[in-house]
Amino acid sequence: MTTNTDLKSIYSIQKELTLISRIESLLHWDMETYMPKKGVEYRSEQLATLSKIIHELLLDNNLWTILKRLTTPGVFKKLPKKDQIVVERFYKSVERSRKIPTEFVTKYTKLQALTAEKWKEARDKSKFAIFAPYLEKIIAFKKQEIKYVNLPGHPYNSLLDDYEEGMTVKQLKPIFEKLKPELIKLLRDIKSTKKYKNQKKVLRGKFPEAEQWDISNWIYSLIIPEKEISRLDKSTHPFTTSIGTRDVRLTTRFDETDPLSSFTPTAHEAGHALYELNLPKKYEYTTVRNGASFGLHESQSRFWENIVCRSEPFAKVLFSKFKKSFPKQMKGIKFNDFYHELNLVKPGLIRVDADEVTYCLHVILRFEIELALFEGKLTVKDLPKEWNKQMKNMLGVVPKTDTKGVLQDVHWSWGSFGYFPTYALGTMYTSQLFAQMKKDIRGLDGKFGKLQFKPIADWLEKHVHQYGDSMRADDIIKKACGKGLDVDTYVSYLRKKYSQIYGF
Amino acid sequence: MTTNTDLKSIYSIQKELTLISRIESLLHWDMETYMPKKGVEYRSEQLATLSKIIHELLLDNNLWTILKRLTTPGVFKKLPKKDQIVVERFYKSVERSRKIPTEFVTKYTKLQALTAEKWKEARDKSKFAIFAPYLEKIIAFKKQEIKYVNLPGHPYNSLLDDYEEGMTVKQLKPIFEKLKPELIKLLRDIKSTKKYKNQKKVLRGKFPEAEQWDISNWIYSLIIPEKEISRLDKSTHPFTTSIGTRDVRLTTRFDETDPLSSFTPTAHEAGHALYELNLPKKYEYTTVRNGASFGLHESQSRFWENIVCRSEPFAKVLFSKFKKSFPKQMKGIKFNDFYHELNLVKPGLIRVDADEVTYCLHVILRFEIELALFEGKLTVKDLPKEWNKQMKNMLGVVPKTDTKGVLQDVHWSWGSFGYFPTYALGTMYTSQLFAQMKKDIRGLDGKFGKLQFKPIADWLEKHVHQYGDSMRADDIIKKACGKGLDVDTYVSYLRKKYSQIYGF
Repeated sequence: MTTNTDLKSIYSIQKELTLISRIESLLHWDMETYMPKKGVEYRSEQLATLSKIIHELLLDNNLWTILKRLTTPGVFKKLPKKDQIVVERFYKSVERSRKIPTEFVTKYTKLQALTAEKWKEARDKSKFAIFAPYLEKIIAFKKQEIKYVNLPGHPYNSLLDDYEEGMTVKQLKPIFEKLKPELIKLLRDIKSTKKYKNQKKVLRGKFPEAEQWDISNWIYSLIIPEKEISRLDKSTHPFTTSIGTRDVRLTTRFDETDPLSSFTPTAHEAGHALYELNLPKKYEYTTVRNGASFGLHESQSRFWENIVCRSEPFAKVLFSKFKKSFPKQMKGIKFNDFYHELNLVKPGLIRVDADEVTYCLHVILRFEIELALFEGKLTVKDLPKEWNKQMKNMLGVVPKTDTKGVLQDVHWSWGSFGYFPTYALGTMYTSQLFAQMKKDIRGLDGKFGKLQFKPIADWLEKHVHQYGDSMRADDIIKKACGKGLDVDTYVSYLRKKYSQIYGF
Repeated sequence: MTTNTDLKSIYSIQKELTLISRIESLLHWDMETYMPKKGVEYRSEQLATLSKIIHELLLDNNLWTILKRLTTPGVFKKLPKKDQIVVERFYKSVERSRKIPTEFVTKYTKLQALTAEKWKEARDKSKFAIFAPYLEKIIAFKKQEIKYVNLPGHPYNSLLDDYEEGMTVKQLKPIFEKLKPELIKLLRDIKSTKKYKNQKKVLRGKFPEAEQWDISNWIYSLIIPEKEISRLDKSTHPFTTSIGTRDVRLTTRFDETDPLSSFTPTAHEAGHALYELNLPKKYEYTTVRNGASFGLHESQSRFWENIVCRSEPFAKVLFSKFKKSFPKQMKGIKFNDFYHELNLVKPGLIRVDADEVTYCLHVILRFEIELALFEGKLTVKDLPKEWNKQMKNMLGVVPKTDTKGVLQDVHWSWGSFGYFPTYALGTMYTSQLFAQMKKDIRGLDGKFGKLQFKPIADWLEKHVHQYGDSMRADDIIKKACGKGLDVDTYVSYLRKKYSQIYGF
């Protein structure tokens, strides 16, 4: 075989794999949005079938032979840079897949779909016992997977690496150990202010879903102005998924008593979607046309959610929008109170509702619990108790029901362990990108208020999106901002913003 | 290999094929309902990939060997009846697939998706020229397919058989030749009445979509009372598709100036969906868990649309419903006029809007045109002219634009030639099922008015649905009604109903 024939095979297999995995995305999207509930068993069989097809394609011995041939130093060195990247990334994912038997994947995929359904039921009935036996099975599968993948160091590394390539417990633990006391200290400072003690919600009454839809569609179309390449729907837990390169789906949720809790997820998911839509065209139908890591992906969603949409200049525009959409409910509310509510710090039970200051504490709690589960220091049965204890210790609040506690997130039902830490990494990256962007774009804050989002989107495309998965997240951040992951930038961003808001 | 191992393989491959083909259905459903428009190219690539996977599974030499082994007379005779049916049906479809090269299928599937998009554009702009070059390509592919399939007799038989197994031009032409003059005669009789000459539409003004949705959901839930096993959405052209055995999707459309044109398609599609949902459980994950033919499927949709929902007793309930939903618009309208409008005979341009009397003439027109196209007596270029000429001859009306003429149906863009005749076959079967049901269920008409639909659904399940694809359509009708396809029963049903309505 010539190198050219080998490369042609690689690109052809990558194309088939990409297309099928995005069909999987459609099946998942549909399951969370429009699928009739009783379709779930059939759907899990369909997902298992696709998963089997993908796994068999990845495990094909001929593919492995080709990849080994192409990665021989003598051959690899002569490849054009673009092909080198595609081959190297593909090699890594095939190498990982070859460690996991097809039968294991098929069974696991079926279990995931059923467990997600059980999670929903448990959440609706606030009954952890419905979910527990399935979660136990999921964890048993993950432990087996760790044995197959078997990365060096802590067993949890094999899970982490799937979401944040290269990240290890050895690096992550000290980061969180530095961040945790800083956040607790900041929270204490905030809580000691007069403003905190007197703070109360000003948005009261019912904010009808129809008008909330309008506001969500408005922010979504500001962040993604091009039409007919994406859509916004409703689901229990907001998410974004690419069905095609010109077909990205995002979802949000609505709470008629809390309009900010649907507006902000929409901005968040639109940030994810923009990243997906801007991924490098030259890598179409390869794994390189993906985000570099979950953390970097999260930095994009958090950027639009927190940096842009919770900024004072943008809040002014949002305030007029709200007054127009909800004239009765907004009567008598002053801008300062509205802006404060948009950035209200209040330790709460629900991660996705958490403010910027407490958010990472929710993540650190999950990270510590996951670590304990996989180190065998905690059983599934004891999860709710442990959850509530840690909530008390870190945030000073305790959920009355499991729905508002351990059952609040869907991720564990999918077996997504090692995933939550990326939320905190992304949040930290966001503040670094913001610091750099301020240097590069004159009058950045003003643009937030004038809804001039194009230079911002262009900056993000140039410094983050365009690389796709051709570089590691931390290297992309280094190139964009001059240094890699940095707790200090994040803490000083928070201190500056919240000392202004709370006056300390 | 033992027979048992062979059977196990057969069932396992059928399961994979069934699951993937229903994933294809989801991709199609999504494309017609929620997919962002610019996702179409990627979607056509995805469909091509699935189509290739299915074709490769069907073409696998090992499968063919197994099927040949199982259909050896000595082996086949000893199989249990159920396995015989599964094997025999599978053998037939594999035999057909083996005639068609994979590459052909891949290219054709891509072309289908693009052509459907071009059809939409041509329809929106009423410009046949946009559609024509793609339709030409589709027809060239179908002509090649005929050569591959190569059934005996007329070339068109190879197309027909795909939708109505066993049907041939030799049988179908005389049926339509008998039906056509009967319908033209009946239409003449109707047109000569005073009532026809004075007839005019009484439903005028705007009927908001929201209330039309309510009425559509109402009839849909009457026909399919069980929740969470199906859903109703909106699309340009109403259709029904099974995504799973407990996940059937139907669509309808809305015209705010013509509420009956959204209500009736909903009843129609719910009839299709009920058939799908009642298919025999014992044949789960095999091709036998499908409708017996497109004609028989259409008999189910037409039954609910025409026999039930356009009946006088049901119309009375519908009348009150309309008065409640549209009090202003319905003011002063009498029941007799409403019932007449529900069964208004008026030669028109659009097939899906056609009344019971003229409907089959629309079908016969398409059949004659298709035959001419495949006999080489008509070119795509001349299609609009020929269409308009035939409309004038058969129905006495001529479309001013191609959107209201040759471009009105999506089917040709999918390459569905040989499909339209099944609409007429189904319509005829409907009247036969109705005649028999009247003998079997006491006070049937009364049940229509009391919304007692369960005995009707049960009868259809017992006499039609439960067989799935284990028998040919005509044999199912013979078993249910004592004789096969019968033009006379249909014509006498029409004459009786419309002589009462028009008074002749």
